[in-house]
Amino acid sequence: MIAILKQGTTKEQIDSLITWFHTQGLEVHVSEGKFQTILGLIGDVSNVSTDLLMGLDIIESVRKISDPFKNANRKFHPDDTVIDIGGYKIGGGAFQIIAGPCSVESREQITGIAKSVKESGANFLRGGAFKPRTSPYAFQGLKAEGLEYLSEAKKETGMPIVTEIMNINTLDLFEDVDVIQVGARNMQNFDLLRELGHTGKPILLKRGLANTITELLMSAEYIMAGGNEKVILCERGIRTFETATRNTLDLSAVPVLKELSHLPVVVDPSHATGVARYVRPMALAAVAAGADGLMIEVHNDPPHALSDGAQSVTPEEFSSIAKQILEVREVIGR
Amino acid sequence: MIAILKQGTTKEQIDSLITWFHTQGLEVHVSEGKFQTILGLIGDVSNVSTDLLMGLDIIESVRKISDPFKNANRKFHPDDTVIDIGGYKIGGGAFQIIAGPCSVESREQITGIAKSVKESGANFLRGGAFKPRTSPYAFQGLKAEGLEYLSEAKKETGMPIVTEIMNINTLDLFEDVDVIQVGARNMQNFDLLRELGHTGKPILLKRGLANTITELLMSAEYIMAGGNEKVILCERGIRTFETATRNTLDLSAVPVLKELSHLPVVVDPSHATGVARYVRPMALAAVAAGADGLMIEVHNDPPHALSDGAQSVTPEEFSSIAKQILEVREVIGR
Amino acid sequence: MIAILKQGTTKEQIDSLITWFHTQGLEVHVSEGKFQTILGLIGDVSNVSTDLLMGLDIIESVRKISDPFKNANRKFHPDDTVIDIGGYKIGGGAFQIIAGPCSVESREQITGIAKSVKESGANFLRGGAFKPRTSPYAFQGLKAEGLEYLSEAKKETGMPIVTEIMNINTLDLFEDVDVIQVGARNMQNFDLLRELGHTGKPILLKRGLANTITELLMSAEYIMAGGNEKVILCERGIRTFETATRNTLDLSAVPVLKELSHLPVVVDPSHATGVARYVRPMALAAVAAGADGLMIEVHNDPPHALSDGAQSVTPEEFSSIAKQILEVREVIGR
Amino acid sequence: MIAILKQGTTKEQIDSLITWFHTQGLEVHVSEGKFQTILGLIGDVSNVSTDLLMGLDIIESVRKISDPFKNANRKFHPDDTVIDIGGYKIGGGAFQIIAGPCSVESREQITGIAKSVKESGANFLRGGAFKPRTSPYAFQGLKAEGLEYLSEAKKETGMPIVTEIMNINTLDLFEDVDVIQVGARNMQNFDLLRELGHTGKPILLKRGLANTITELLMSAEYIMAGGNEKVILCERGIRTFETATRNTLDLSAVPVLKELSHLPVVVDPSHATGVARYVRPMALAAVAAGADGLMIEVHNDPPHALSDGAQSVTPEEFSSIAKQILEVREVIGR
Repeated sequence: MIAILKQGTTKEQIDSLITWFHTQGLEVHVSEGKFQTILGLIGDVSNVSTDLLMGLDIIESVRKISDPFKNANRKFHPDDTVIDIGGYKIGGGAFQIIAGPCSVESREQITGIAKSVKESGANFLRGGAFKPRTSPYAFQGLKAEGLEYLSEAKKETGMPIVTEIMNINTLDLFEDVDVIQVGARNMQNFDLLRELGHTGKPILLKRGLANTITELLMSAEYIMAGGNEKVILCERGIRTFETATRNTLDLSAVPVLKELSHLPVVVDPSHATGVARYVRPMALAAVAAGADGLMIEVHNDPPHALSDGAQSVTPEEFSSIAKQILEVREVIGR
Repeated sequence: MIAILKQGTTKEQIDSLITWFHTQGLEVHVSEGKFQTILGLIGDVSNVSTDLLMGLDIIESVRKISDPFKNANRKFHPDDTVIDIGGYKIGGGAFQIIAGPCSVESREQITGIAKSVKESGANFLRGGAFKPRTSPYAFQGLKAEGLEYLSEAKKETGMPIVTEIMNINTLDLFEDVDVIQVGARNMQNFDLLRELGHTGKPILLKRGLANTITELLMSAEYIMAGGNEKVILCERGIRTFETATRNTLDLSAVPVLKELSHLPVVVDPSHATGVARYVRPMALAAVAAGADGLMIEVHNDPPHALSDGAQSVTPEEFSSIAKQILEVREVIGR
Repeated sequence: MIAILKQGTTKEQIDSLITWFHTQGLEVHVSEGKFQTILGLIGDVSNVSTDLLMGLDIIESVRKISDPFKNANRKFHPDDTVIDIGGYKIGGGAFQIIAGPCSVESREQITGIAKSVKESGANFLRGGAFKPRTSPYAFQGLKAEGLEYLSEAKKETGMPIVTEIMNINTLDLFEDVDVIQVGARNMQNFDLLRELGHTGKPILLKRGLANTITELLMSAEYIMAGGNEKVILCERGIRTFETATRNTLDLSAVPVLKELSHLPVVVDPSHATGVARYVRPMALAAVAAGADGLMIEVHNDPPHALSDGAQSVTPEEFSSIAKQILEVREVIGR
Repeated sequence: MIAILKQGTTKEQIDSLITWFHTQGLEVHVSEGKFQTILGLIGDVSNVSTDLLMGLDIIESVRKISDPFKNANRKFHPDDTVIDIGGYKIGGGAFQIIAGPCSVESREQITGIAKSVKESGANFLRGGAFKPRTSPYAFQGLKAEGLEYLSEAKKETGMPIVTEIMNINTLDLFEDVDVIQVGARNMQNFDLLRELGHTGKPILLKRGLANTITELLMSAEYIMAGGNEKVILCERGIRTFETATRNTLDLSAVPVLKELSHLPVVVDPSHATGVARYVRPMALAAVAAGADGLMIEVHNDPPHALSDGAQSVTPEEFSSIAKQILEVREVIGR
């Protein structure tokens, strides 16, 4: 941790601050510049609040040098985390496609799509039962009934299922769910994250629309601090001034996350762009950027989907995209 | 609702689409342009999904004309909502200052600050007991104990208290709380909002860091749809590329919200800027912009606050700011 | 163009507005909704100012339906534009790599890098002679001398050269330049664009840090309106709240631009990320997303580059990236 | 300047780096932490490129401690700059209102508005003769003719005039102009800034839509480095995801700029919001935040203005706003 002092700070003030740091068990290295004095704090600074220091009149700025995340940090865990879900591995070179409709609509729909995407190369089935919708008047998902239909589709196809939780009080309903998704809007619902840290289930954690890469890793840390190390990170677009796509897919986040963390990284081009015809180029780009997996919305009848129809591709198109994905993976040697 | 058709759409396709709209109980007005045909849909379009339409091959773009919020909408409720909290009114010309520390730290601290800010002109006491923190390793608040200390401060001073809820399962602890705050990170925690709609308590709803003004109103709508009309909107800064302040306080949101909605609008300059010395200018600016209230962090000993010290002003400074606030209010005739 | 009228607009006001539109030579289709009346304007609306209409008391919102760009618009020019530069084609399936150092530093440096990148598969040489720098105290480029060195490198290698112009008054010095680059900061320097529209040189136009895709196309339009149709669009990262990379590379802009326009689209992963080790994944991702070309910074001795060293790859790494690029292009069938 | 080394850097690498810093005339203070070594560089670091250092394999991050601007920096020039323009002072407690239409449309229009706003309390007249327009097909201003009309209005009213330059080649036409405006889109047109640094005219420099406060000050530095110290900074809204207003007026920039620099700060609420009815609240808020001046668009007949009609207030409303501005200034003791 580095503290930069304001111009005009007196020697007395500096000494008193150094003494206080010593009481916190920290060593202090002083660098006196022409205009400014800089204190380098050595030791365990995890309990020193940046905000508290910023409040002192004599301090101009403070900077933590060590990354604030530990369990998720590649520095302390150099090898890739590989998560095994029902025999399907993700991370450490293993790649998976999660496909399915935005919302579970009926027994027939979800089982039909499941069979179709499985044939085309997806190993995981997605489908929303609890839907976070901006409007209270919009379709909110089939809820428990939707989870049941997902279970049946799993029984018929053997595909592990991925679906979103919105409220820890519904956790009991997720017993048969293989990967619990935390949506972008709940990325900093810290109580939910903490509780999920006490389950043994893999968690797919989506990046919030205005959250930095560091904050995504801190939210992973909430889950991991509870003992659950099976976290899959998901880039799904951030909010910018551009309106041609629903959000701006930040594909640079893929190499950055792979460098900072050992956790698998999945990309969701469907929600990011919101437009079915951009799903193929963005899916391939995500693979080329080094993603460990993709999450793609597929609907057997896109125009009639109850939510997000415009961003779903048809099973036929999905099949063709899935083939190209394998080819791009070969090129990048994965 | 307006649907703009793609170039090259055939007459048959248009007729088939119009027929479908008719089955949805909508009237359709057709405008044929040189390059494009536009359909105006008249009737109850609340069940027609924009996304579904966007998924159709022949549609270029779709736009809802009516605002998607109803209970919060000034169009259907022209008069300002005035919320009476323990005899103190907010909205419709009535202005309130909510002051207090970021976190409740001890019985003495919160009661001490309460007395001090009350004397200086604040009617409401704020203080966090449950703290949403980016890091799982940071101080998370005194929780139930903190709420107790707030209650005692209320008993001693008569000030209604405002404090944040993070988890609906802790609602029982909030019985003595007068205004329940929903933090920026939970603005789209829809399950929490829905449950708060079933309480009778006033809710102070903070705008999310990447949320639009319309989304803030839609989140208010979640609460109001449950029957709870006592919602106070709060602007607290949005996330931009600028790093000189913690967030960018969007003061234009004040007149925009007052125009679109009848709900009271409060501004939090402390969290927005993150810097105590910018609190005064931003507080006065918020009042000049027409805010119905302010939320200001005050700490008796800022440098030692357990969280957000840098953004807290001292009781002395608060007192001086409070005086200027009254004067600015007089100028703008409120 | 569509104009949505405010609630409560009287029939007289509407009639008077319609009469005014008629005097502008427009046909008007009226759709009366339950809450709102909508006017669809048919005809040549290019001279009707949206702002002017928005200023009228009775108008709630206005929307232009037709795209504001014409020459750059794929609607009016369905085939890809292919630009031939010294025998090297770009666009319409033809792909090019532009490589070279950020700044021209010396005769030996630029010729050395040119030979090296040519061998590895780049056909175009880039190198800055006039450098736009945030600080007036930073190195501003070798200027005329730099352009001379570029010319010599071109003579020795036969590579067409791409270099940035900052001021129309230096145009005479660009006679031997094959592609004139307009930097992100000058994307809306309309006078510069207009003047470049009168040259016959291909222009590489970089997207501004806060500019939308539509604005990029409007700036291309400034050049094309002057008669110069040889415009190459370049995505180079936009400004967001994320700080892990210098900017956020918006790769969705590639399929969006290819859909809206017939102009070739090039991606610059070096400036976008600002970090050499992210150049490979982002370059491959750009190709997978459908880019017609790449602009990659290569430096024989990155740590000693006079500007932007951190974002330059070595010739060895460039050679390895260039091979993978070809392979990804094969996968996507280009 | 601080350089943080990567984990695993060897002693030899560190020594070699330190030796190199010594050759650059810098002193180096070494702080060895548990996980990381930090080098504090003392001396004149203005020639050490952050980018160059970032390119070294052993460096994790680099941070300049000293502000990169000098002439504009309050640290080296503690007193407010006061600029006297035709007897009207701005800065150091002196406040000015610049008012007038977006575009000069005719001799009668500009003189008429000038007289009207002068009566209501504006001392400076604004009006665009050269208009930067996103579309090449939009009205581009009356150019030389517009400047003539402005001169006549100045002659009749005695008001100094403020108008925008887009191209240094038109400088001759600006002889009678009192304050030359640089628009947001040209904030980083460095060649234009440099040339303006050689004129003796006051420059009103608008912040770019995606530019940080530091970059605004660096652009001021370009002008001041040429010897022209008469720079007025202008906040006019930045680009964010919010669409309810044209841009997001960043009023916190006012106290931040006043703290970092001694230059006067003016706010333009008209362009920032793009909506006439938000001009009053935002103008008053800007004054409350400590602005040294305001720039307000006034049009005698807003709906018929050739550009930006929707954001112009009428002379009557301007007069009423101007009165309240004086009252708010009194409250904040200026």
